Amino acid sequence: MSLLLEDLVKIVDGELEGDPTLEIIGVGGVNDVENRELTFAQNPNYLDKALASPASAIIVTHECETVPNKALIKVDNPRLAFAKIAQNFTPELFKIDQIHPTAVVADDVELGDDISIGPNVTIESGSKIGDGARIAAGVYIGSQVSIGDNTLLHPNVVINAETKIGSEVIIQAGTVVGSDGYGYESTDTEHYKVPQLGDVIIEDKVELGANVTIDRAATGSTIIGEGTKVDNLVHIAHNVKLGRNCLVIAQVGIAGSAQLGDWVTLAGKAGVIGHLTVGDNVTVAAQSIVTKDVPSDSFYSGYPARDHKSEMRVKAARRKLPNLIKELNKLKREVKELENKIDSSPNE
Amino acid sequence: MSLLLEDLVKIVDGELEGDPTLEIIGVGGVNDVENRELTFAQNPNYLDKALASPASAIIVTHECETVPNKALIKVDNPRLAFAKIAQNFTPELFKIDQIHPTAVVADDVELGDDISIGPNVTIESGSKIGDGARIAAGVYIGSQVSIGDNTLLHPNVVINAETKIGSEVIIQAGTVVGSDGYGYESTDTEHYKVPQLGDVIIEDKVELGANVTIDRAATGSTIIGEGTKVDNLVHIAHNVKLGRNCLVIAQVGIAGSAQLGDWVTLAGKAGVIGHLTVGDNVTVAAQSIVTKDVPSDSFYSGYPARDHKSEMRVKAARRKLPNLIKELNKLKREVKELENKIDSSPNE
Amino acid sequence: MSLLLEDLVKIVDGELEGDPTLEIIGVGGVNDVENRELTFAQNPNYLDKALASPASAIIVTHECETVPNKALIKVDNPRLAFAKIAQNFTPELFKIDQIHPTAVVADDVELGDDISIGPNVTIESGSKIGDGARIAAGVYIGSQVSIGDNTLLHPNVVINAETKIGSEVIIQAGTVVGSDGYGYESTDTEHYKVPQLGDVIIEDKVELGANVTIDRAATGSTIIGEGTKVDNLVHIAHNVKLGRNCLVIAQVGIAGSAQLGDWVTLAGKAGVIGHLTVGDNVTVAAQSIVTKDVPSDSFYSGYPARDHKSEMRVKAARRKLPNLIKELNKLKREVKELENKIDSSPNE
Repeated sequence: MSLLLEDLVKIVDGELEGDPTLEIIGVGGVNDVENRELTFAQNPNYLDKALASPASAIIVTHECETVPNKALIKVDNPRLAFAKIAQNFTPELFKIDQIHPTAVVADDVELGDDISIGPNVTIESGSKIGDGARIAAGVYIGSQVSIGDNTLLHPNVVINAETKIGSEVIIQAGTVVGSDGYGYESTDTEHYKVPQLGDVIIEDKVELGANVTIDRAATGSTIIGEGTKVDNLVHIAHNVKLGRNCLVIAQVGIAGSAQLGDWVTLAGKAGVIGHLTVGDNVTVAAQSIVTKDVPSDSFYSGYPARDHKSEMRVKAARRKLPNLIKELNKLKREVKELENKIDSSPNE
Repeated sequence: MSLLLEDLVKIVDGELEGDPTLEIIGVGGVNDVENRELTFAQNPNYLDKALASPASAIIVTHECETVPNKALIKVDNPRLAFAKIAQNFTPELFKIDQIHPTAVVADDVELGDDISIGPNVTIESGSKIGDGARIAAGVYIGSQVSIGDNTLLHPNVVINAETKIGSEVIIQAGTVVGSDGYGYESTDTEHYKVPQLGDVIIEDKVELGANVTIDRAATGSTIIGEGTKVDNLVHIAHNVKLGRNCLVIAQVGIAGSAQLGDWVTLAGKAGVIGHLTVGDNVTVAAQSIVTKDVPSDSFYSGYPARDHKSEMRVKAARRKLPNLIKELNKLKREVKELENKIDSSPNE
Repeated sequence: MSLLLEDLVKIVDGELEGDPTLEIIGVGGVNDVENRELTFAQNPNYLDKALASPASAIIVTHECETVPNKALIKVDNPRLAFAKIAQNFTPELFKIDQIHPTAVVADDVELGDDISIGPNVTIESGSKIGDGARIAAGVYIGSQVSIGDNTLLHPNVVINAETKIGSEVIIQAGTVVGSDGYGYESTDTEHYKVPQLGDVIIEDKVELGANVTIDRAATGSTIIGEGTKVDNLVHIAHNVKLGRNCLVIAQVGIAGSAQLGDWVTLAGKAGVIGHLTVGDNVTVAAQSIVTKDVPSDSFYSGYPARDHKSEMRVKAARRKLPNLIKELNKLKREVKELENKIDSSPNE
């Protein structure tokens, strides 16, 4: 495929310096871009590499000067503009514009227009698939599930019964949504399973990575807010409420009934204990464990997690510990000597 | 469906206050229960909410007084009673009472009565499926596997060859049982794979969460004891022996040949180093790493994990470290001054 | 099956003491080996158990003396020799020597000789499967994927489009290769998805455990070097480069664009922050987080990870902290008393 430079400029509302009729056939990072393709330089520091590359066009910031051999598209945020243009060169994954004959789809499933349902997919009774949805091979969709428009499920995803998934959601391979929450009533003789009667709601524009697990609520709903992006191998327990536009990095675990606000970032391997409230605009550093409520606009780290700056001071001090012990022992000896000196002083 | 109150009371061996012929059509948590449904109040503190809800019946403790508008079921443990009654209103997942025509089942597989085998399931030669077992879509069962009565495998579970699974076991979606253990003999030039010749034994009433991995033994068996409940994304390595009625919370990892007793709780993200022995009734706090044997009836935390109270004291003291350094430096100066004072004292 | 002892000796280039025509019918660990089978004793300490077992033959080191009732195979490394011989008694998993009729294989897929493609496998257009490859049930292989000779994919593995997999690779069940990297360009209103245009290269003799996730590069390639062995539930982000013969233990996470050398060992639950460089022959202890570049031939631990010995000293000192605070407070009181004594001394 190819697109004219003048059309690409319109996509990103940019300013063109170069031939508007130039045909661009692809995009690439600065290290692997080719001739007739487009790349970007996020700031002037990266420009030299882009200029030395075989790229025919470069997305740059407005302050960038005209160069002889490359077309330039000037924008406020080159990386964002590149992402938007790149999407136009990316094939629509798993688009087959048919229901594959090996798919097992219950008679009463409500199917939208322009959908793709891959090989060996199972869709149970009472479910609804929105327009333009793409369901890749091996996906399981339980009964009474709703999938919004243009949502994409990668291969071997499992969506258990009654889950509600919004529009433009992406769920990557192997992820399980709507598994039973981990709920038992323990007696002296056994852990008795508490039926998990609730569901999961995945709002619009959410992305879930690969091999993620999101448990259904005990009663009510586990909720992943609009625009939130979840990385691989994340665990989200029953009745968690994740706000909008959160970033949940790989291998994070969020325990039951925790409530997180909007624009929360949980860095890799972080954990949140159950039944806590985390405010808006909170960042939790990698491998930190949140053990009590976190106010909005905080940066927390450590275990138990607390104010990051304070934790950094503790971490720095911690390294001085072996030396500290030596110094304290030395000081004890000095004080002992002083005591002796005073006690033996003639005027005592 | 609906059940008479008098029948529900029998299930939990409770005491009824109210109309025994009342028809109950469902159950719900106190926040989402509806009219003609049943909810519970674990203790008198929660009773007000239940009374204010539209529920027609409430499970309460024996000390609870009669109320005018609600039927009451009095029991010792309302949550446990609720769980037992709720199970009667929960549809049996993945029950299709047939072998789906797309399933690929080897000719010699021994099939029990009343089984459900979903779409695109594969069951290899020499395996045996117990009465009432439900095998959901996309499950793979290798050769020489045995699955006990009333066991439930969620979609896309993989059970590799020779695994033995007991009765009333639940394995949630995406979980892999019987993957090869991580065993290599390392030389100067390579890590040579050591064939993993053993198997996995999952005893009765075990539940495994979603996307769990349980490796087969190098030789002998990896064993998950009866009644043990494993949460999502847990890793259990080859030759681990987990006792009965353990709770293994999300993202825990147990390294090879570790042996754990009965009623052990490993909180989220905890780890156990290989070849260790952990006694009965042990609790390990979240994200703690067990690096040496743990005696029975212990509560351990930290890395290396040790007695929880002692670790809590260290954690509290740790926060005082930056201040401690300041105080030590101040004290050093004071001692220096004292020294100077003494040294300059006239009678020295 | 059975093999003559003289043939087994040739496989491991060993020295035989015993009847070369003895037929061996299997192998086993010292605790579960049976008559007419072979076991091993890695060093003389383990020999007693092997001698007391029903094994007919034992692999031992050269210094071992002749014994009356057992055949001995003497080698430099008994465990390695046992692994090599055991492989000859291990059935070739998932070998069906056919393309199962339920598999959905695109017309233009290039298929090698002697391949096995299991039930409900999907292989998309433009892909190539090498000689002797075994693709188990439920595997998804996207378009333009290449799979090398004798490579083995366990059930329900997902290999997304354009991935390149070498020869003699093993990928265990539920693992996802080529999921989109976690890349967003964040604005005030959303996290905009950055198309992930790169691929994944898995070199020869790599093994990936179960439910692992390996993301495709943003541009360029995510690379797993030859002979590297990855355990279960590991996350490898986009553009990571893992060198040759690395050991990556369960639940490790490696963030984007990190570059690791050869013979690196990351113990369980360790993490590597993005864009770092880790040298050759580096070991990182369990649950440690690497936050800056690590030179070759290092042993790092802690968070932030640093020299292991130094971290061990800090860990030991940390336990003394509560006592340290008491001692410091005691010393402060003593110094105060000294001050008082001096101040009240008559000659001041």
